[in-house]
Amino acid sequence: MAPVAIGLFMALGALLFAALLEKISFGALIAPSPMILVFVGSLGATFIAYKTKEWKRVPKVFGVALKGKVPDADALVTTFAHFADVARKEGMLALEGEIGKLEDPFLKTGLILEVEIESLTARHHDMAAFFLTLGGFAPTFGLMGTIVGLIGVLRDLSDPTKLGKGMALGLLGTLWGVVAANLFFMPIGTKLNRLHDSEVAVRRIAIEGVLGIREGMASRILVERLEARLSPEMRKGHTGRAGKSPAAPQVAA
Amino acid sequence: MAPVAIGLFMALGALLFAALLEKISFGALIAPSPMILVFVGSLGATFIAYKTKEWKRVPKVFGVALKGKVPDADALVTTFAHFADVARKEGMLALEGEIGKLEDPFLKTGLILEVEIESLTARHHDMAAFFLTLGGFAPTFGLMGTIVGLIGVLRDLSDPTKLGKGMALGLLGTLWGVVAANLFFMPIGTKLNRLHDSEVAVRRIAIEGVLGIREGMASRILVERLEARLSPEMRKGHTGRAGKSPAAPQVAA
Amino acid sequence: MAPVAIGLFMALGALLFAALLEKISFGALIAPSPMILVFVGSLGATFIAYKTKEWKRVPKVFGVALKGKVPDADALVTTFAHFADVARKEGMLALEGEIGKLEDPFLKTGLILEVEIESLTARHHDMAAFFLTLGGFAPTFGLMGTIVGLIGVLRDLSDPTKLGKGMALGLLGTLWGVVAANLFFMPIGTKLNRLHDSEVAVRRIAIEGVLGIREGMASRILVERLEARLSPEMRKGHTGRAGKSPAAPQVAA
Amino acid sequence: MAPVAIGLFMALGALLFAALLEKISFGALIAPSPMILVFVGSLGATFIAYKTKEWKRVPKVFGVALKGKVPDADALVTTFAHFADVARKEGMLALEGEIGKLEDPFLKTGLILEVEIESLTARHHDMAAFFLTLGGFAPTFGLMGTIVGLIGVLRDLSDPTKLGKGMALGLLGTLWGVVAANLFFMPIGTKLNRLHDSEVAVRRIAIEGVLGIREGMASRILVERLEARLSPEMRKGHTGRAGKSPAAPQVAA
Amino acid sequence: MAPVAIGLFMALGALLFAALLEKISFGALIAPSPMILVFVGSLGATFIAYKTKEWKRVPKVFGVALKGKVPDADALVTTFAHFADVARKEGMLALEGEIGKLEDPFLKTGLILEVEIESLTARHHDMAAFFLTLGGFAPTFGLMGTIVGLIGVLRDLSDPTKLGKGMALGLLGTLWGVVAANLFFMPIGTKLNRLHDSEVAVRRIAIEGVLGIREGMASRILVERLEARLSPEMRKGHTGRAGKSPAAPQVAA
Repeated sequence: MAPVAIGLFMALGALLFAALLEKISFGALIAPSPMILVFVGSLGATFIAYKTKEWKRVPKVFGVALKGKVPDADALVTTFAHFADVARKEGMLALEGEIGKLEDPFLKTGLILEVEIESLTARHHDMAAFFLTLGGFAPTFGLMGTIVGLIGVLRDLSDPTKLGKGMALGLLGTLWGVVAANLFFMPIGTKLNRLHDSEVAVRRIAIEGVLGIREGMASRILVERLEARLSPEMRKGHTGRAGKSPAAPQVAA
Repeated sequence: MAPVAIGLFMALGALLFAALLEKISFGALIAPSPMILVFVGSLGATFIAYKTKEWKRVPKVFGVALKGKVPDADALVTTFAHFADVARKEGMLALEGEIGKLEDPFLKTGLILEVEIESLTARHHDMAAFFLTLGGFAPTFGLMGTIVGLIGVLRDLSDPTKLGKGMALGLLGTLWGVVAANLFFMPIGTKLNRLHDSEVAVRRIAIEGVLGIREGMASRILVERLEARLSPEMRKGHTGRAGKSPAAPQVAA
Repeated sequence: MAPVAIGLFMALGALLFAALLEKISFGALIAPSPMILVFVGSLGATFIAYKTKEWKRVPKVFGVALKGKVPDADALVTTFAHFADVARKEGMLALEGEIGKLEDPFLKTGLILEVEIESLTARHHDMAAFFLTLGGFAPTFGLMGTIVGLIGVLRDLSDPTKLGKGMALGLLGTLWGVVAANLFFMPIGTKLNRLHDSEVAVRRIAIEGVLGIREGMASRILVERLEARLSPEMRKGHTGRAGKSPAAPQVAA
Repeated sequence: MAPVAIGLFMALGALLFAALLEKISFGALIAPSPMILVFVGSLGATFIAYKTKEWKRVPKVFGVALKGKVPDADALVTTFAHFADVARKEGMLALEGEIGKLEDPFLKTGLILEVEIESLTARHHDMAAFFLTLGGFAPTFGLMGTIVGLIGVLRDLSDPTKLGKGMALGLLGTLWGVVAANLFFMPIGTKLNRLHDSEVAVRRIAIEGVLGIREGMASRILVERLEARLSPEMRKGHTGRAGKSPAAPQVAA
Repeated sequence: MAPVAIGLFMALGALLFAALLEKISFGALIAPSPMILVFVGSLGATFIAYKTKEWKRVPKVFGVALKGKVPDADALVTTFAHFADVARKEGMLALEGEIGKLEDPFLKTGLILEVEIESLTARHHDMAAFFLTLGGFAPTFGLMGTIVGLIGVLRDLSDPTKLGKGMALGLLGTLWGVVAANLFFMPIGTKLNRLHDSEVAVRRIAIEGVLGIREGMASRILVERLEARLSPEMRKGHTGRAGKSPAAPQVAA
């Protein structure tokens, strides 16, 4: 959760600090009409393209983005190093016992992995697209608020004091449209896409690991092959992993 | 129909509520000239690129988007579980009788499926592109309205009262351009593309099911293979489907 | 020609009607300087990227877009049904006589079809890109006109009457830029791309038909295979086509 | 050179003519500060992403775009018709003498052609991207100039005469940003990409020609195969080319 | 480092020079609130999508972009020419001694090269995307600053002197957003992507070189094949490289 919270704190803090420096109270930026228009309006426009069943998945997905728990590629390589050793020394039967202890349903089946990744990609992209679509609609709804505000102001130009206040209120629409898109919706959509990429990368390691063990590949060679998918500073080689058997990484389904 | 109606109600409601909060009557947002310009103008510009035969398909496609009826992947898997059992126990002849009861013409042929999906994709994308093109043209026609309005105002600056009213009227062009694009055209185009994706996903299950039954695959294995294309919470396994034979899902052609 | 004319009439009519409703005469929208700037300027910027030989092809291509004549996929399927029957009953020699009667050079060679489609695609996309590039440049040249107009106005703010008229004139630049792009250049470019897609779809039917006849495929099966590329309502089956032999469709080269 | 010069003349002429019609002297559009900002600024921002070695290639590439010399596909087909005849009648040895007379280094090697095209594409796209990146940066640097100008104006609103002149000067930034991008950088980048496409098309003819001659293909068939890559009006058949042997086309490396 | 420094100097210098020419002191462009908003805000919004572990890699990557050290393709070809000679004359064993002297870990393994390039591409693109995402957020945070400033100004229109100064301050937000994006974030992101392309090109030469030596290819032929990936002016042939054995190029990992 930390990175999301820190990032959000920085972005929102910078906005409030800038308002403070220009002697604009936070209250002056809060107004019900533009906030309702931007958040409810863009949610509505986005909902049109999604099924009710998918709406219900949004809060859970939002939580996934907040936690940002990424599958642990390093632990997975160590697990496969262990598996390869067990398969060699104690036979496939002993290995099946080990695998039975895993919690990740993905690793258990290990059968139709490529199709799983394809179907998982379609599901994840749908949910990331939900937030990116929201982020696309938000500024246009903010713009609607500003135009409506301007229309209200321009219809009666007799009182110049009202003119300024009306335009200030109108501009809040644009502000909240931009804030909603760039502080909330876009970063969350981008985050979900990146979480998905990390997950797929780990699953590709798993596929290669399963294939390697089936071929009876030696632990040392399997580790070398799997580590080619890690960044150089994460590579420990077989000796750095021997004898350790961490629990297989938990992956959000 | 529900999701589209709720989404539209939320988006439009938010806009009207915001106007209400800023004490702008709904009537002030209604004006014939910008509405005609935006809707007729962008329809005209879009029609240029479409054949008369395709224009006629638009209202039907619009209805498809409103209903949002998506093919039932779950029922299809159960149907194939049933088919695999019939084929095994009663032979291919009995299966043909079962298939004759289906209503979906797509499943009946089952022969040249890949080409069908290709040709279906071209047809669907044409229709989604129709609404997305509309959504692309609408704001530019709104902008034309605003510029024309501004030109009218600027040519006679002598009466400041008229100035404000003229500019308010002019801004309605931009407002309706943005509203038409973001409340109607873009969400419908996106919806049609997503409906297409759902349909293709189900048709891919059908292709794999037909192939599996031709190979004489066991019901249990076929279900496992087809369910890899469903999300984890939809997977019931063979036992969850045995003995049930829902009607094959209806799919909008 | 009808769809293009109707579309253009709707779009242009909506613009003029909106101007009329706001009591702005059509004459007020006509001014030589922004029109010259937008049309000549964007043509010039586009010409830079095209060879003189390609410039000369533009009027012909423009005519193709206006007529919008699309190859008749239906007639082509019937033709191939007829060809398959002739080949079966009267032999390949008789078929060659039939083919000699065709006017479409594309069907005559039937040899190096895939390369032809590739080279045809490159040529067509070049011409569609010509109009889409024009549509990309037009608004920026309109903007130049507006900025130049504003600069002229701002340099002498002493007479407020001239201010309004100058700004109105300046805005005509933006108006004509948007009109030229969205009423003329973009729709024509899109139309050309769509005409190309229709033509390629028909040529793919032709390729499959030629291959089918060479393999000596039965008329009934050939029709079924070719009709998979038509939309469901266009499928008549072999019985709906037997005995009819329309002239092969004319296709703009 | 002609098309580039004519295009540039039309675009620039339209701009100056529009200024003239609105009674704005050309001198009023010339100001050192926005021109320096736009040209030097966007060059600087683009240089950051390019190596010094690549900077030096820019003037040469600029010249290539100006000349717009495109390889002559027609002459190449005739050359290969001649080569095929020589190879048949006088043998491969005589052909090698003919090839020795060619000037194009590309045709001489004829060995590792596919890799050459790949590496040539990377080099050419880098250079086209240089001008397209310039065209992307130019309007933003123009915008910076306008904002800086506006800030200068707004800090002292006491003298309304200065206000107008300051804003006019500020707008020159936006004008020059748009002009630099749309009259110079974008068209040149597009031109370079199109020149590259033409060159690759010709090189593909050359690859097919070399392969055809190696296989000992008859001149008549080779011409038919190569002409499938030309537009219909350029196809002369073998008889239209027999006995002519133009120099192989010069291609800018 | 030179190209980045020169480019930055040109872009920043042009901005300051333009400000100077319009008699705006540099101090007038410096204000804490827009600068904090743009830099801290867009960093925060970008951090949301990145893991803490990735944040830490940013300064190192920034240094890589500044240095812009690109792998030396020329030296690599010469090295392989030398290797091929050694392998032929002194045998594979002697060659292994030579390879042991290399510093680049990439060349040492030479085993699972394609997967390495894939995983390297994912890592590099993540880091380039970091700066490009920053560059996408910066102008929107600048816009927020301008809107907040305008709101502050419009709420009290009584003092026209304050109006101008407030708007000037507000515009600094937009200015810094555009400057941060176009002078810093975008060029650095583009630079990183181009550095990556150069590195991959060199690694592809290395893969082909390793394969060539394993096949026992003659030095002369290997050089010809590898040089097809260099630009024509870099090609020296075997004679231009014989007897020289530069250190293998250093490549940033």
